[in-house]
Amino acid sequence: MASLTEFNLAEAVAVLTRTPATLNVLVRGLTDAWVRCNEGKDTWSAFDIVGHLIVGERTDWMQRLRIILENGEARPFDPFARFAQVKESQGKSMEQLLDEFARLRKENLAALQALNLQQADFTRKGRHPELGVVTLSELLATWTVHDLTHLHQLTRVMAHQYHDAVGPWKAYLGVLQCSGHSAP
Amino acid sequence: MASLTEFNLAEAVAVLTRTPATLNVLVRGLTDAWVRCNEGKDTWSAFDIVGHLIVGERTDWMQRLRIILENGEARPFDPFARFAQVKESQGKSMEQLLDEFARLRKENLAALQALNLQQADFTRKGRHPELGVVTLSELLATWTVHDLTHLHQLTRVMAHQYHDAVGPWKAYLGVLQCSGHSAP
Repeated sequence: MASLTEFNLAEAVAVLTRTPATLNVLVRGLTDAWVRCNEGKDTWSAFDIVGHLIVGERTDWMQRLRIILENGEARPFDPFARFAQVKESQGKSMEQLLDEFARLRKENLAALQALNLQQADFTRKGRHPELGVVTLSELLATWTVHDLTHLHQLTRVMAHQYHDAVGPWKAYLGVLQCSGHSAP
Repeated sequence: MASLTEFNLAEAVAVLTRTPATLNVLVRGLTDAWVRCNEGKDTWSAFDIVGHLIVGERTDWMQRLRIILENGEARPFDPFARFAQVKESQGKSMEQLLDEFARLRKENLAALQALNLQQADFTRKGRHPELGVVTLSELLATWTVHDLTHLHQLTRVMAHQYHDAVGPWKAYLGVLQCSGHSAP
């Protein structure tokens, strides 16, 4: 099988449901060397990434979905505050962020389920402030791939910490060749 | 903090310990659409990736470590069988592979701990059949980053399934720009 042919709500929700637990298992309890280190100036650490995911849950995905349902293309989405996590995460521990992300995601998925979306809803249109007209299913697929893009980034940020430690094996390890296309 | 300055056994083991559970939480119970789809001809699915990790546990990492301890540079490592998972995984379910990987990793980490490696051991040398002289700490760091490179690949393979479903958002999602440098 080469690719999923179309968006499927249950399959998207299956991934969205798993992300908080995946992050939890991957980073809870790791030392600051793994959790607070980044890839250099103006890049994100694991801590920054989880903070960013929290901001998305709080201000973006479900809010945009409701704008589509209530206003259609008439009202453009509010822009995503891509650096709001700096303030949002200040003074918190990684463990607090992981708990907060899990709680918000659970609430948002319950709210999504309560909407009882039907097939016809998936083609309803909204307006992105930069990208123009988008559909409700594109928003839900993007929410899902946004999780994956930040898991992708997180594994790259962690691998970067052993950039030198792997010695000549660097040539064989694809993640160390990744050019940071997942950066904010 | 920009980077870990040097290899640390406890920190490497912390990541190696978490990988089976991370994979388990991320993919167990997902439909075949997520688990068996790949990125096109001659690329790997999530199922192939977990099979490959099993082969590494069975034939590579700890075997190479023992060769360093017993033979030093005198005996080159056996080459890594990068496609052995096709035979290894045949007829098995994803759930069976996840269980098998978790069991093998647990056994290997117990064996690693039993070796009671000391700081001086980390600089002991071995010979890679293509890369030449490597150290024991480079092998352990590579085992760790190899896990991360395949988690990185896995998130990319999953995201690829929604390549079209995200519509114009594709431009913003870094994982969809990843050029497959994590391929085998």
